[in-house]
Amino acid sequence: MPQFMDVHRGMTGLSPEQLDEAHRADLAIQAEEDVNFKQAWADPAEGIVFCLSEAPSADAIKKIHERAGHPTEEVYEVSLQV
Amino acid sequence: MPQFMDVHRGMTGLSPEQLDEAHRADLAIQAEEDVNFKQAWADPAEGIVFCLSEAPSADAIKKIHERAGHPTEEVYEVSLQV
Repeated sequence: MPQFMDVHRGMTGLSPEQLDEAHRADLAIQAEEDVNFKQAWADPAEGIVFCLSEAPSADAIKKIHERAGHPTEEVYEVSLQV
Repeated sequence: MPQFMDVHRGMTGLSPEQLDEAHRADLAIQAEEDVNFKQAWADPAEGIVFCLSEAPSADAIKKIHERAGHPTEEVYEVSLQV
């Protein structure tokens, strides 16, 4: 399954609870697009969030994130990993 | 130890061997700044690379990446993780 890193911006001041809630909102519906969100990291000072996932396509990720209330168009297929 | 995600751009066409070589160049000198590069993911089509690390500061990461031949100013302290 291809692996992706997506990026969310404008999240300045994000709390641990808000990140957890957003992640759980993704997890709750991810199976409907065959997405597996593996991990997420956030820099609340800069308002940026990185999500690592496995998915059939970038579009599948965009659909889940949008339905979960935090849409992004910035999705990268990270085909290489070390 | 704080955790960071840094981003490299302009890496279009990056090969698995080039990513591996760049990562090994970081690992070879990371101890000199007390940095621990944990993982890296690359999208060769978009030319973007994400590096996850633990380090005492963003500046320490910038120093290692610059000395290893792939400088970046885009370093985020990802204090939250799920």
